[in-house]
Amino acid sequence: MWDDGRLFHGGDYNPEQWPAATWREDVALMRRARVNLVTVGVFAWSRLEPAPGRYDFGWLDEVLDLLHDGGIRVALATPTASPPPWFSLAHPDALPVTADGVRLHHGSRDTYCAAAPSYRAAARGIAATLAARYAHHPALAMWHVHNEYGTTCHCPHTEAAFRHWLIDRHGDLDTLNAAWATSFWSQHYTDWAYVSTPRATQYLGNPGHLLDFRRFWSDTLLAAYVEQRDLLKAANPALPVTTNYVLGDWVPVDHARWAREVDLVAIDHYPSVVDGGAEEQTALAADLARGWARHGRTRAGTPRGPAGPTRADPPATWLLMESAASQIHTTGRAHTKEPGRMARHSLSHVARGSRGAMFFQWRAPAGGAERFHSALVPHTGADSRVFRESVRLGETLDRLAEITDGETTASVALAWDAASGWALRQPGMPSALLDGHAELAAAHRALWRAGYGCDVVVPGDPLDRYRLLVLPALYLADDATAGWVHDHVEAGGHLLVSYLSGVADQHARVHLGGYPGAYRDLLGLRVEEFHPLAADEQVLLSGGGTGRIWSETVHLRGAEPVGTYVGGVLDGRPAVTRHRVGTGTTWYLSTRPDDGTYRRLVTEAARTAGADPVCPAAPPGVEAVRRAAPGTSWLFLLNHTDRPQRVPADGLDLLTGVPADREVTLPAGGAAVLREHPR
Amino acid sequence: MWDDGRLFHGGDYNPEQWPAATWREDVALMRRARVNLVTVGVFAWSRLEPAPGRYDFGWLDEVLDLLHDGGIRVALATPTASPPPWFSLAHPDALPVTADGVRLHHGSRDTYCAAAPSYRAAARGIAATLAARYAHHPALAMWHVHNEYGTTCHCPHTEAAFRHWLIDRHGDLDTLNAAWATSFWSQHYTDWAYVSTPRATQYLGNPGHLLDFRRFWSDTLLAAYVEQRDLLKAANPALPVTTNYVLGDWVPVDHARWAREVDLVAIDHYPSVVDGGAEEQTALAADLARGWARHGRTRAGTPRGPAGPTRADPPATWLLMESAASQIHTTGRAHTKEPGRMARHSLSHVARGSRGAMFFQWRAPAGGAERFHSALVPHTGADSRVFRESVRLGETLDRLAEITDGETTASVALAWDAASGWALRQPGMPSALLDGHAELAAAHRALWRAGYGCDVVVPGDPLDRYRLLVLPALYLADDATAGWVHDHVEAGGHLLVSYLSGVADQHARVHLGGYPGAYRDLLGLRVEEFHPLAADEQVLLSGGGTGRIWSETVHLRGAEPVGTYVGGVLDGRPAVTRHRVGTGTTWYLSTRPDDGTYRRLVTEAARTAGADPVCPAAPPGVEAVRRAAPGTSWLFLLNHTDRPQRVPADGLDLLTGVPADREVTLPAGGAAVLREHPR
Amino acid sequence: MWDDGRLFHGGDYNPEQWPAATWREDVALMRRARVNLVTVGVFAWSRLEPAPGRYDFGWLDEVLDLLHDGGIRVALATPTASPPPWFSLAHPDALPVTADGVRLHHGSRDTYCAAAPSYRAAARGIAATLAARYAHHPALAMWHVHNEYGTTCHCPHTEAAFRHWLIDRHGDLDTLNAAWATSFWSQHYTDWAYVSTPRATQYLGNPGHLLDFRRFWSDTLLAAYVEQRDLLKAANPALPVTTNYVLGDWVPVDHARWAREVDLVAIDHYPSVVDGGAEEQTALAADLARGWARHGRTRAGTPRGPAGPTRADPPATWLLMESAASQIHTTGRAHTKEPGRMARHSLSHVARGSRGAMFFQWRAPAGGAERFHSALVPHTGADSRVFRESVRLGETLDRLAEITDGETTASVALAWDAASGWALRQPGMPSALLDGHAELAAAHRALWRAGYGCDVVVPGDPLDRYRLLVLPALYLADDATAGWVHDHVEAGGHLLVSYLSGVADQHARVHLGGYPGAYRDLLGLRVEEFHPLAADEQVLLSGGGTGRIWSETVHLRGAEPVGTYVGGVLDGRPAVTRHRVGTGTTWYLSTRPDDGTYRRLVTEAARTAGADPVCPAAPPGVEAVRRAAPGTSWLFLLNHTDRPQRVPADGLDLLTGVPADREVTLPAGGAAVLREHPR
Repeated sequence: MWDDGRLFHGGDYNPEQWPAATWREDVALMRRARVNLVTVGVFAWSRLEPAPGRYDFGWLDEVLDLLHDGGIRVALATPTASPPPWFSLAHPDALPVTADGVRLHHGSRDTYCAAAPSYRAAARGIAATLAARYAHHPALAMWHVHNEYGTTCHCPHTEAAFRHWLIDRHGDLDTLNAAWATSFWSQHYTDWAYVSTPRATQYLGNPGHLLDFRRFWSDTLLAAYVEQRDLLKAANPALPVTTNYVLGDWVPVDHARWAREVDLVAIDHYPSVVDGGAEEQTALAADLARGWARHGRTRAGTPRGPAGPTRADPPATWLLMESAASQIHTTGRAHTKEPGRMARHSLSHVARGSRGAMFFQWRAPAGGAERFHSALVPHTGADSRVFRESVRLGETLDRLAEITDGETTASVALAWDAASGWALRQPGMPSALLDGHAELAAAHRALWRAGYGCDVVVPGDPLDRYRLLVLPALYLADDATAGWVHDHVEAGGHLLVSYLSGVADQHARVHLGGYPGAYRDLLGLRVEEFHPLAADEQVLLSGGGTGRIWSETVHLRGAEPVGTYVGGVLDGRPAVTRHRVGTGTTWYLSTRPDDGTYRRLVTEAARTAGADPVCPAAPPGVEAVRRAAPGTSWLFLLNHTDRPQRVPADGLDLLTGVPADREVTLPAGGAAVLREHPR
Repeated sequence: MWDDGRLFHGGDYNPEQWPAATWREDVALMRRARVNLVTVGVFAWSRLEPAPGRYDFGWLDEVLDLLHDGGIRVALATPTASPPPWFSLAHPDALPVTADGVRLHHGSRDTYCAAAPSYRAAARGIAATLAARYAHHPALAMWHVHNEYGTTCHCPHTEAAFRHWLIDRHGDLDTLNAAWATSFWSQHYTDWAYVSTPRATQYLGNPGHLLDFRRFWSDTLLAAYVEQRDLLKAANPALPVTTNYVLGDWVPVDHARWAREVDLVAIDHYPSVVDGGAEEQTALAADLARGWARHGRTRAGTPRGPAGPTRADPPATWLLMESAASQIHTTGRAHTKEPGRMARHSLSHVARGSRGAMFFQWRAPAGGAERFHSALVPHTGADSRVFRESVRLGETLDRLAEITDGETTASVALAWDAASGWALRQPGMPSALLDGHAELAAAHRALWRAGYGCDVVVPGDPLDRYRLLVLPALYLADDATAGWVHDHVEAGGHLLVSYLSGVADQHARVHLGGYPGAYRDLLGLRVEEFHPLAADEQVLLSGGGTGRIWSETVHLRGAEPVGTYVGGVLDGRPAVTRHRVGTGTTWYLSTRPDDGTYRRLVTEAARTAGADPVCPAAPPGVEAVRRAAPGTSWLFLLNHTDRPQRVPADGLDLLTGVPADREVTLPAGGAAVLREHPR
Repeated sequence: MWDDGRLFHGGDYNPEQWPAATWREDVALMRRARVNLVTVGVFAWSRLEPAPGRYDFGWLDEVLDLLHDGGIRVALATPTASPPPWFSLAHPDALPVTADGVRLHHGSRDTYCAAAPSYRAAARGIAATLAARYAHHPALAMWHVHNEYGTTCHCPHTEAAFRHWLIDRHGDLDTLNAAWATSFWSQHYTDWAYVSTPRATQYLGNPGHLLDFRRFWSDTLLAAYVEQRDLLKAANPALPVTTNYVLGDWVPVDHARWAREVDLVAIDHYPSVVDGGAEEQTALAADLARGWARHGRTRAGTPRGPAGPTRADPPATWLLMESAASQIHTTGRAHTKEPGRMARHSLSHVARGSRGAMFFQWRAPAGGAERFHSALVPHTGADSRVFRESVRLGETLDRLAEITDGETTASVALAWDAASGWALRQPGMPSALLDGHAELAAAHRALWRAGYGCDVVVPGDPLDRYRLLVLPALYLADDATAGWVHDHVEAGGHLLVSYLSGVADQHARVHLGGYPGAYRDLLGLRVEEFHPLAADEQVLLSGGGTGRIWSETVHLRGAEPVGTYVGGVLDGRPAVTRHRVGTGTTWYLSTRPDDGTYRRLVTEAARTAGADPVCPAAPPGVEAVRRAAPGTSWLFLLNHTDRPQRVPADGLDLLTGVPADREVTLPAGGAAVLREHPR
């Protein structure tokens, strides 16, 4: 049973990069940092199977035993994200091909096509071999399949698989032709053999084609995962199986759908910005992960694995599988996390449901492509700020074991689906600035800054616990999604919708008759014309705010204006509207408001809906998250400012053991976790 | 007979994108908007011939009959710009290949190589089949071949065709070697088999090679057009045939040369900028089209088709085949035309010779790559500003039928040839900012703002009616072009030449001995050294103006300085010069002046030449164009400002039916068309 | 014997681009400009061998005779940098292939793979044929092999050759696996057949792999050169052989290593910037060339050729083989050198050891890819400023013959090796702004502005004559390099080290335990964390300067801070340090200081080391370089300002023949060369 009740601390451990002498030092240092879980073997295929069918497990046996002796549990990885050189040479047809027809070569990682039969067979082979050898090794806490599924391909194997997938999805060509609107530009298909992957072409591609290609890859990569999972489960049904999600709108993976197939949602998270943004990104990533975990539980039927819920409504659990101990490579350079920031990021994840805080990687290597990736033990060695902070983080996490009983609280639901993000990025959209993830992030950031707890939900998820539902440029809406939103409002729920939500159906075909086709009645308006803005342009809004990215001509059909455009072609026209529907209110944002305006709007919408912030008295820059269980709750307070902050609060600070008496003082860059009621 | 005397209103109609029920609504709406011409079938190949040799004409029969019953004429298109998927699969050798060797795939449009025999045969096949079935259908007003010819290829078919073309052009290898200056970098050819298309290579390509490749494509695409035209003519010699030109310096088409082969010059025009530029671009596009139409008539020998001239010197007629009813996609986003702007753009074209105003497309589709392209019936439907403006435009056009008797007047000739534009864009030029179309546009804009009517001419065209000839960076000058310019000046004509004109010969070889080799004697100067400017750099000119892009060391050899450089390495040296030759004056601009300076310079040159503006009293922002016929004339006044404007003028306003008495008041954004003398 | 005691003046002469009549005019003009050396035949292969095995030497015979009759010597080139079209068609396998697998085509120059056996055979063939015919032609001064070696390839021939090279270098796969750290990302090789060139791959490549690929190309191109050299030498051992180096960090050539194989180091130099930078770049290029020449002599054992040293320590001699007479193409446009600048650049090279000043090319062609490259005889012809300046330069050079007896003086050594530059540019580094050449240039510029003479040395070169050694981001340090630096300091030398020096070993593997692993003891510090800066970011330094590109956390271990960071995360921490080691001092710069700060720091370090500037009294903008011989010396003074400058100095000005009496006045943009003591 992998769950010893403690939060996890650790990361990717790659002993194959080091001599055996270092392994012993590693275990000693891990114990010093209270590491209790490490991921082993992620990129070790070429060391485990140096030649086809020739295996070398001796080193791994020794490492697992050493770890086990040290009390450190292992997430044992299947190494299929990086086939060895011999595989690429033996199976050149399994190397990936770009849309331009360029066959990529080994020399990096992920140089395979996941639709190639030879790759899939080899991946099953090494997974089965590992399962046979280690499924009952006492060090094992779980299986970790592959790494960051996310690559695509355009090879002949892919083309054949894509056609089969399309036949499954559409059934017949008439359906596909209608879904893809192939009457445009003479793309009507009369034989499945004519359908290929969306390779490099002369001009704009077909939106339905491009969207289905992403869905196909999500399903194909999932099938590759499921094959391995089933082999691992067959060897030991008691061991949980997971894979680590990589985030980003380039990733052709529908993570919510995948959540039904993993025993534990696991994500890797590296902020893509640093100043004024990493904290918000961290919170969003964690809320996304918890949303996927909830969705997986809701939709998967029987929860999988031994960690399944034992109460009626157990907390949604997931795991931060990778993060950066210090340096993050983004915008062309490495950024060093300031002292304390690693711990705050870790606590932000834990507060939102992560079973711990894991890192890539344990020890920084001298060579290899990621020689400058940060690590718990950096190039400098254990005599370093980073390692010392790792040790402190281990202590911190040890003190927080009890919080896993609590569910992160939220009164607002933020809806998101992967396909909307993909569709907004397609060619031929009214603006090249459209970015669904950015729109999701803007809405989430507004809620975060306003202090509201927020669950990210997938269309179809239960909404009964939320007062307010937010749709941030949720572009696609089929009948089911539209019905789900209508049902929420009809049941008295409140709704906040931002531009371009519900404009198109599941095949990215525009709903005709006035935008947004799926929601115009619910919002009491009709949008007639779009006025996208230039990258450096903003529109003024009444009340002093500004809008970016987008604006549009809104005709009221029952809604009332809350804010109007000031100046320009839309001068005096509605920019933000409100509409009373039954006992609820629906809001519409026809532009992307600046952060301050957005925060005020969500605050107003939430207040109208009767939703409360987590900790109304928390000063700016102090993040508050609550986990609640029957009879008690835990309040996480993270001070992201460089000054001490005082927060009115009661409870026992688990980090210091000191009770707060009406107020807790957070050190600059520090944190507190208050048990708000005795247990 | 396609010409019913009315101006055309309509656009691309794609019934194959809609159910039959919509067709009837379409015809009703078309009648409401007084649509009298629609282009049908442009991208319908896969619906007309869903499998090789299997045809489905039922829907088209029905649509043509419906339109005919509704009194709407049809420009029936051959659908060869987008072969069906089955064609691409059956003839992979006909898919286009980039310079890098990437074979492009179907999935968009234009995925064929126009030099591939199988493509050409299939294109002839569908054209002949359409001709056989519809050449005498009463709805047909004309044939519309293909769509926006402009693609290139580097496949083996292309290479073979290129070699044949080169043999035709150069005759022997010595001539080719001399033309291409192959002694540079060891490129001397001793066998035709060694000559290939200019594929991706290690470093800079050969200028002569690159230029001939563009000329080859112009001729090859023209041959593809002519093949279809001849088949269509054979079926019904009375029906005119055209194809719609796409503009832009990436297009490897010499539109003037093509004009000799079409019965009606037709252009598509979408401005590439919006604010402060769309009107000027519109005027230039229309003047280019009229110039091509004139050139075609001058050079083609017998005018083609039933619409041929019935008088000694009939007006040059052409057609705006595509434009945007509202949203234009440019600079990464869609821009919505403000109310009234569609009508003003349409009138600008009509004033300059267009037989009407046509749009892409009639009804906005829900899907397909161009789902957000604007349409006369937008996504919102007929209850929309755009459709209401379309209806009003239909009424306006109906009132203007008589103006087709008039020829657009011009006292200035602006010379342009496609090859100069191609050559200025070549690698290895002294500046990467050189842009022949921008230089043409700058000269045209100066004339437009100064209020002069302007004909765009091709070297060799008759110049007897013009007082002033302008050469805007007309880089290439063979002996014939140089002689044509000299003859103009010797006949007493005036000349304005901007930098880099006449620097190279027809093979882009520099004329030696001092720039600009072809014109230095005529201009009375010698340019010794170039000083190209940085993108964000400008030079000061005496008199207060500035120059951009370019500057150079000018030595006077008879000319006098009109303006000098101020500051910098050229301080005090001539920037603008004037030279007296016989009874004429030649002017030289050694930099690109700012718009105000350029306007003042062309005004001075025009005044010196004795040329008059169209409407000297028109206030700034009011565009004036005159069409004249024996005994009368029509003055178009377009108010591009957002305030009413008063213009001293006399005549009957055809738009309102109200006579002007010494003055007409144009509404903000409005227009008037005055018949200046009774008929 | 090629050395007639005069400095060389001339350039690339391409008679094949002109009719025979021009040749006679060329010789007359050359004589007017006192040209005494021209490079002939560089790109003439297709004219010398128009078809395989068919030769046409008549024109070359005639040209060589004409030149000889005119007293002009010839550097006869092998034309192998541009095989004729027939070669490419006959040997498509010898066309180069990009990392993406794109096979490049002929149509430019350098379209061959230097690892292809058929290319190598053809190159040897034409070289041997030329050698047989011309090795004893009296016009020949030297052989000029090829042109600007620098291209790479990924074809199968390359892959095979790369494998052989790796076997030679690493011996066995265990060594290679360790060097490349292949345990990262499962790249462990178990068969040489699995190793390929670093082709396009999914994500980051392997640093060791990428670095060895560059080293392989340096060696492979060198082998191609050596083959030709040996053939030429066999025909006439008395004729020197060289090849012209092209500079730039994209060039996969270790020029220092190559210097051992040429009789005369020759470089082409075109500044990549113009304003405020071309002079510094010129000085650096010349110092690099002299460094290579010294290294070649030091390392090559017996000096080659008849120009070998005749004294114990003869001056290091090299040749500026190509430069621009006027226009330089850079940053997207051509920049014209102001009057006098060509001469100052030429004198800067000559002052630093060049045997003269040569140009590409003699006469500007009408056509070809480089039709706008500058030339001694420009498009305008001989009646031009540029040609007149060429004539004056010829006179100037004639007056300076005696200075070749002097060695350029230097008291500071600046260390550089090509591989460090390559490694800093690799993917996965902490900053994409890292640029070893820029760091080298910054250090050199600081010394240049401070007025210190500087030798560029290669690790391992003798350092006994230098008081101060500077390592500018010299990233790689194997044991030998580290020992060389330690020995210098232990012998009492002073040391200035900038950030990232000595961080990695020869395989780009990071030295663990604290940066910079190779030098932390010597510097008395340990760097723990990197803080790379954004492109537009700077950090403040105590004392008022600023830093760019980089900053880091420096822990002192004996060193003292000279400057600290002000503000930001490093506020108050050491930025610049100084450490006393024995009798010397070591300095460390943890950021890139602004130019003024850098100049002050090197001045302080040099003063501490007891090094003197060349001409302490030279005003700003006047460059001073001294060449010294036993008993006398020559002081070059170049006035780069636009005003006359007075410099306290004594001696005879060779340019004017006028003796300076305590002071010499330099005209604006002018120069003086003072013989400081009678001979």
